[in-house]
Amino acid sequence: MKNIVLPLLGVLACSAPALAQQAEKVDQAMVAKIKDEGLNRSKVMETAFYLTDVSGPRLANSPGLMRASEWAKKQLTDWGLAKANIESWGDFGRGWEIEKSYVAMTKPYYKAMSGTPKAWTPSTNGLIKKQVVLVKVSSEADLEKYKGQLRDKVIVTEVTSMPKLGLEPDARRYTDEELQKMAAPVVADASPRRPAMTDEQRDAMRARAALRSKLAPFFISEGAAAVLSNPRGGSVGTYFTSNGAPYAADAQPVLPELEMATEDQLRLIRLVEAGIPVEVELETKTKFQTQDLKGYNVVAEIPGTDRKLKNEIVMLGGHLDSWHAGTGATDNAAGCAVMMEAVRILEALNVKPRRTIRIALWSAEEEGLHGSKNYVKNHFADPATMQLKPEHEKLAAYFNLDNGAGKIRGIYAQGNEAVMPIFASWLQPLNELGATTVTARTTGGTDHLSFDAVGLPGFQFIQDPLDYGTRTHHTNMDTYERLPPEDLKQASVVVATFVYNAAMRDQKLPRKALPTAKAVGQR
Amino acid sequence: MKNIVLPLLGVLACSAPALAQQAEKVDQAMVAKIKDEGLNRSKVMETAFYLTDVSGPRLANSPGLMRASEWAKKQLTDWGLAKANIESWGDFGRGWEIEKSYVAMTKPYYKAMSGTPKAWTPSTNGLIKKQVVLVKVSSEADLEKYKGQLRDKVIVTEVTSMPKLGLEPDARRYTDEELQKMAAPVVADASPRRPAMTDEQRDAMRARAALRSKLAPFFISEGAAAVLSNPRGGSVGTYFTSNGAPYAADAQPVLPELEMATEDQLRLIRLVEAGIPVEVELETKTKFQTQDLKGYNVVAEIPGTDRKLKNEIVMLGGHLDSWHAGTGATDNAAGCAVMMEAVRILEALNVKPRRTIRIALWSAEEEGLHGSKNYVKNHFADPATMQLKPEHEKLAAYFNLDNGAGKIRGIYAQGNEAVMPIFASWLQPLNELGATTVTARTTGGTDHLSFDAVGLPGFQFIQDPLDYGTRTHHTNMDTYERLPPEDLKQASVVVATFVYNAAMRDQKLPRKALPTAKAVGQR
Repeated sequence: MKNIVLPLLGVLACSAPALAQQAEKVDQAMVAKIKDEGLNRSKVMETAFYLTDVSGPRLANSPGLMRASEWAKKQLTDWGLAKANIESWGDFGRGWEIEKSYVAMTKPYYKAMSGTPKAWTPSTNGLIKKQVVLVKVSSEADLEKYKGQLRDKVIVTEVTSMPKLGLEPDARRYTDEELQKMAAPVVADASPRRPAMTDEQRDAMRARAALRSKLAPFFISEGAAAVLSNPRGGSVGTYFTSNGAPYAADAQPVLPELEMATEDQLRLIRLVEAGIPVEVELETKTKFQTQDLKGYNVVAEIPGTDRKLKNEIVMLGGHLDSWHAGTGATDNAAGCAVMMEAVRILEALNVKPRRTIRIALWSAEEEGLHGSKNYVKNHFADPATMQLKPEHEKLAAYFNLDNGAGKIRGIYAQGNEAVMPIFASWLQPLNELGATTVTARTTGGTDHLSFDAVGLPGFQFIQDPLDYGTRTHHTNMDTYERLPPEDLKQASVVVATFVYNAAMRDQKLPRKALPTAKAVGQR
Repeated sequence: MKNIVLPLLGVLACSAPALAQQAEKVDQAMVAKIKDEGLNRSKVMETAFYLTDVSGPRLANSPGLMRASEWAKKQLTDWGLAKANIESWGDFGRGWEIEKSYVAMTKPYYKAMSGTPKAWTPSTNGLIKKQVVLVKVSSEADLEKYKGQLRDKVIVTEVTSMPKLGLEPDARRYTDEELQKMAAPVVADASPRRPAMTDEQRDAMRARAALRSKLAPFFISEGAAAVLSNPRGGSVGTYFTSNGAPYAADAQPVLPELEMATEDQLRLIRLVEAGIPVEVELETKTKFQTQDLKGYNVVAEIPGTDRKLKNEIVMLGGHLDSWHAGTGATDNAAGCAVMMEAVRILEALNVKPRRTIRIALWSAEEEGLHGSKNYVKNHFADPATMQLKPEHEKLAAYFNLDNGAGKIRGIYAQGNEAVMPIFASWLQPLNELGATTVTARTTGGTDHLSFDAVGLPGFQFIQDPLDYGTRTHHTNMDTYERLPPEDLKQASVVVATFVYNAAMRDQKLPRKALPTAKAVGQR
């Protein structure tokens, strides 16, 4: 394979060995040192421990996120990075955290239940004990039948996704075949990884959203006490969590609401449907932070040393914020710990990069990539106008990690044809660690999109999926236990190598054509 | 295969088709009716719902078990069974249930945690908020270092079984190959399914038990407030539960103790080990029932109609009691619901069995098969003396179901060579439902052993393992969701067929040689 030269024209993906024909200098000795430091003296799990267990959940603008930000700033400084800073990116909204959360069924018998207040929902009026009413609403007309039925009740809403027998494993790794498929040539207008919705699906989604927006005012006007919900399934104790109210300072009021373990929610539902009176007791105490409504990213640098190139920047990052039922271990303490470990490795090796290396730990990614979007807007360009700032031409590359805790199997070129042979060369000494694949495909859902949106070369790595899609993404089970140390060590070595190569290369990484100005898209 | 006649002498297992060469009358029309009723008009899931969700956890002598017993007695009567009764089998001990259970970490930040009071542990003194101390004890000498350190503290003990990445499925079914292996001939002294412990393992187990028995008095004498433990692992929110104190009325005192979700326990441990002060708050309120210390089984009959045979009995059963963190759905509401459904099917078909069919739902199985052992002792024989009671010769067979919620794949002949061709014939019309295999092997762990111990033909079916061993057996996740309806329907049809055949057969089922008198072994 090594001797076959494939024509690159009209082809956006290719196997790594073939692409590597394009001569690209790689400092093999330095890669060996990075491997040695990253695999044998890793601190990535210690970093992950401080970001997860010690900081706690890191909801946007929460005290947990601020603990993690302060710790990261200090740790990066202690490792020798320069200009470590917690940098405001603009206005976000209210912070919020849980001070107490308890829910149990008290009739027909006692059963402590598992649930978590939805983000930005208010407290209950102390410990309340109420009868349960099951509310099934699929259209606005359905609300009518609950008029006068909800006063002083705890509302239980439907479960639409039923637990399945676990005949499939929670976790998986990419097979060679899957990776080869990702590396295979695709047509120039590579379709996005997640196909766009059909018009029908979009209409249905909008109708559901419109209905949802009417529920809270209805429940409040009817005098209900609280809501127990499970809108997205999950099984064997795993449940998903999100926000139950906007984070905006002027958000409309909602009821206290807990997202519940599927098994507990289903038991309540089955009992009510069988005509058996059900009573629950619950207490949630939540605290809003309204003193500082700004959002913040953590940044720090390894200064460049090349007279001509030191004003150019190679960036790496991941989002530090998380949802709040777990500790955001795979989403995305993992990515942040790997990025921090990558710069720690480079500092430990005392590299003198030609370009400046800048790490950024974003905030409010979960609410719409706000930290990275605003950083890009403040530093590089606003995609709405495409008026470029001076720094726009200085960015050599941005590397992102936010697809769970799986090891890196390659990288998405994000439709950037010219960068593919370069990445293939960089991957060669990392092949033995399982990182082999350059795909032309684009991938979405995280902060490299903010760079891509203004024509900057922003990339997300391909990671083994593990149990991210089934068990950890936005769930109460996204905890430190879900982080496989060997995967995170491997990822740290790959990222450190990529960042080092990008900082040392004679040229910045090639870019795609600049996009035209457009309104900022919502994720 | 059907035409090959295998010699049975010296062989204790054989494939079903070969064994079926032995002519055994099977009423094919009745089997078809049983299938129709059991597969098309099943009530097994409704029964399972009342045993689990409606009754709640069914710890031995708890109010939950009494609710389930009363419901089963009434339901069996409503279906037309005779002599439904809640029959005392003798002395058990205290009942116990949870009236409140709440536990949360309050420092370094707030996190509601998941845990369940161990059975028969006492209440906390209201809501307590205490500092956490990690206690690691592997020998009695280790206790010394905690002297004076535990006053007014919550003790956190070690986790010895770490969560694993879920690369293997929770649930599985037997493969054809596995079933063929079970059906293959084995030597006469078939080794038990679970190999006995080595002397070394037994010594180590005894040493651990001896050490454990010293912990509670030590913790109490040191003035500790409560214990949080996770002695048996589990992952992604699943944890095991058992008793934390004896059920005997004169049991020594212990501290309040909760069995914790592995993730929550590990977070506490990691924080304490990193030198970070950890505080928890908890409240458990548990209630002991000491009015009635007797244990009870539920029994009911379909009376026999053959003048000569109606005093003979075919029994079927499963244990109704459970552990208490879930609702004992797979252990063993599943088995009870299937057994109840089997007699419902037979009642619905208005069968007039020659022999009397008697269902028994046992109690206190989890504490040592007490319900069935004492039933056998009261009705048939005491294995300690082997003095046979008159009913001993009247029992045609006992069929048990207690290996989770998986469909029936065959039956353990329990070393009874003579019964194998009969079972093979009975399975033939059930082969199409996946029930194919007769194995000579013995299986243990449940109530058929009580019959087998006095030379009565007691059998447990082979069931697909599903997620019984990984996810549900004695865990907080043993809930209604873990019951696959199609599996329980299939099992009901198989059991109804076996019971019917045993009730109609000219002869009782063949027996093994009578055992000699021996002290009752502990499970």
